[in-house]
Amino acid sequence: MNNFTFQNTTKIIFGKGNESTVGSEVSKYSKKVLLHYGGGSIKKSGLYDKVVNSLKEAGVEYIELGGVKPNPRLSLIYEGIDLCRKNDIDFILAVGGGSVIDSAKGIAVGVLYDGDVWDLYTRKGSTEKALPIGTILTIPAAGSESSGSSVVTKEEGQLKRDIGYDFIKPQFSILNPELCSTLPPYQVACGAADIMAHIMERYFTNTPNVELTDRLSEATLLTVINNIPRVLEDLNDYDAFAEVMWAGTIAHNGLLGTGRQEDWSSHKIEHELSGIYDIAHGAGLAIVFPAWMKYVYKTNVDRFVQFAVRVWKVEQDFANPEKTVLEGIARMEDFFRSIGLPVRLSEAGITDDRFEEMAQKAIDAVEEDSFGSFRELKKEDIVNIYKLAK
Amino acid sequence: MNNFTFQNTTKIIFGKGNESTVGSEVSKYSKKVLLHYGGGSIKKSGLYDKVVNSLKEAGVEYIELGGVKPNPRLSLIYEGIDLCRKNDIDFILAVGGGSVIDSAKGIAVGVLYDGDVWDLYTRKGSTEKALPIGTILTIPAAGSESSGSSVVTKEEGQLKRDIGYDFIKPQFSILNPELCSTLPPYQVACGAADIMAHIMERYFTNTPNVELTDRLSEATLLTVINNIPRVLEDLNDYDAFAEVMWAGTIAHNGLLGTGRQEDWSSHKIEHELSGIYDIAHGAGLAIVFPAWMKYVYKTNVDRFVQFAVRVWKVEQDFANPEKTVLEGIARMEDFFRSIGLPVRLSEAGITDDRFEEMAQKAIDAVEEDSFGSFRELKKEDIVNIYKLAK
Repeated sequence: MNNFTFQNTTKIIFGKGNESTVGSEVSKYSKKVLLHYGGGSIKKSGLYDKVVNSLKEAGVEYIELGGVKPNPRLSLIYEGIDLCRKNDIDFILAVGGGSVIDSAKGIAVGVLYDGDVWDLYTRKGSTEKALPIGTILTIPAAGSESSGSSVVTKEEGQLKRDIGYDFIKPQFSILNPELCSTLPPYQVACGAADIMAHIMERYFTNTPNVELTDRLSEATLLTVINNIPRVLEDLNDYDAFAEVMWAGTIAHNGLLGTGRQEDWSSHKIEHELSGIYDIAHGAGLAIVFPAWMKYVYKTNVDRFVQFAVRVWKVEQDFANPEKTVLEGIARMEDFFRSIGLPVRLSEAGITDDRFEEMAQKAIDAVEEDSFGSFRELKKEDIVNIYKLAK
Repeated sequence: MNNFTFQNTTKIIFGKGNESTVGSEVSKYSKKVLLHYGGGSIKKSGLYDKVVNSLKEAGVEYIELGGVKPNPRLSLIYEGIDLCRKNDIDFILAVGGGSVIDSAKGIAVGVLYDGDVWDLYTRKGSTEKALPIGTILTIPAAGSESSGSSVVTKEEGQLKRDIGYDFIKPQFSILNPELCSTLPPYQVACGAADIMAHIMERYFTNTPNVELTDRLSEATLLTVINNIPRVLEDLNDYDAFAEVMWAGTIAHNGLLGTGRQEDWSSHKIEHELSGIYDIAHGAGLAIVFPAWMKYVYKTNVDRFVQFAVRVWKVEQDFANPEKTVLEGIARMEDFFRSIGLPVRLSEAGITDDRFEEMAQKAIDAVEEDSFGSFRELKKEDIVNIYKLAK
């Protein structure tokens, strides 16, 4: 086990009806906030009205900025920064999914940064402060509700970049599974793949002696795998959705990475996919992860055997560990397909071949010749992984 | 799953050598602290010197108060409160195990409380503030390094009472498994029982639909069960001790109780044992828990079957669930015995019969006629559990 520091200060307020407490939570920090959200879904569902009423009751003034799209855009972040500065806003309330929260984090650091916020995403600049934010989460997926990361796309050049700072973790996040019952099932399935990916990026490590985090990771994966089919059968299955939603937070609040080196190659490889093709991040991960696994498993067969046996309940073939590994990967693919996700580029309608271009962009993004800690990947490896995903 | 709020702000600094950073951590909060510890073990091991040097290097002044005993005493807390007030101390650094940390918490609330601190423990008074504290943990057991609770014994009347406040959670806790290698093996085993008990007090619930917290709990239990024998075989097995130490924090930082009703009957029943006989809390739990289980399992046989199958790897007897349950309890007893713990009062040398007296004290402590949420226990039930533990 490696040395580590773990701290996650986000207050999680979980369960039925909690969105109505948002005004009193916000008022602990501010009397004038930016209310940040996506499209019209929170208006249709009635959530918008509940939030606005709760803010008003608590005497909190708000200025609105809607319009966040999946893979949140830099241009809207600029707009948000401008709005906050002009109106002396010192708190951002994000109501929505990971994209809205990531966009809010971008605004939160940008307002207090004396320069172009995009420089933070490209590592040209750095900062040590941000406005505090709070969230009402409407889809379990990105884990942004208690993470310190934000992923943003710059339209020009279709560049997708991230930042990671402890001080952009939300002050509080309100999670009510009831709010998820109006989601499109495909989006819920994509969310599940994203949650699973957050765990697997940490699970596939060469750091030895990480039994507790392995077992906690397997526990969280199994919970998602068991409950997502129930959720997709009935989006009003509160109990099943609650399991997935809490798992989504645990998957990405840092706990499951304690004491180990993490990988994150599949996310980097996927970012270029969803950056260019604008497919859902979760769908991209369901495509990239199996290909990555097939490409790298020989680096640490034992770990993949453990994954196959403990997570996918493969009966271990002791004489042929690779058979066990491949059966595990196959079951993961079957699972993703069973919840309606593509596991090949072709299944997502991507038939052209921009592998060289995407691999180059993935490499450029890290400003190194390679990335990946479980197995180091150079440009040609990334091309090979895209090919395996065809 | 029940609605819940979860927040744990303690910064965990985990791994080799981290005790040498304590000065710089403390200096973020204070330049004059109370250095609180137990007996001479930290002086013998060299930890005391390291801590004192680190404080000096960071320009932190300290006043010492050693002498904390297992089952920390109220009288020393009074002394600590007095010392802090007279010396304008505004931070407490606890170096030791759960007793030292619990004692530090008592002092921390007491200094800022305008009355007798014992009134907080008896619920005659309440408070909303405490001095900040930091810890260097020297034994994985109580979980006090990131919990909001403190258990203290008032010598007069041998009364053991607790408090629980979010604001007494340590600001930081330094956990270095290397520091544990000089512990007496029996104490390590008692610690393991305490960790397991913290999980089981939460695991045995009648709240339905708590799959994620169940699985996380089982993961943590299995990690302790797998690693404690390795630790006892070789106290210098860093990797095994690291698993147990991190598990000890996870067991009691609140995560495993999210969304469910907790029980805590066994702790209450045990407190009267260690209050009167001054046996180690962990040994008392190893005695009380099996008896409690045998007395209550019929309340929710399915839950006990799950415990037996998933934690103790009992092959399920589908035709006879109670057989599965009892085999699970038997394996837990075997495990406790295998690590040198008593599982009967007689094995701990307790042969007199003060069951009525202890049951009455346990009931008096809660100021109700009964306690327990998994199964409600009245005085006669508690007497029966002590009898089962004979």
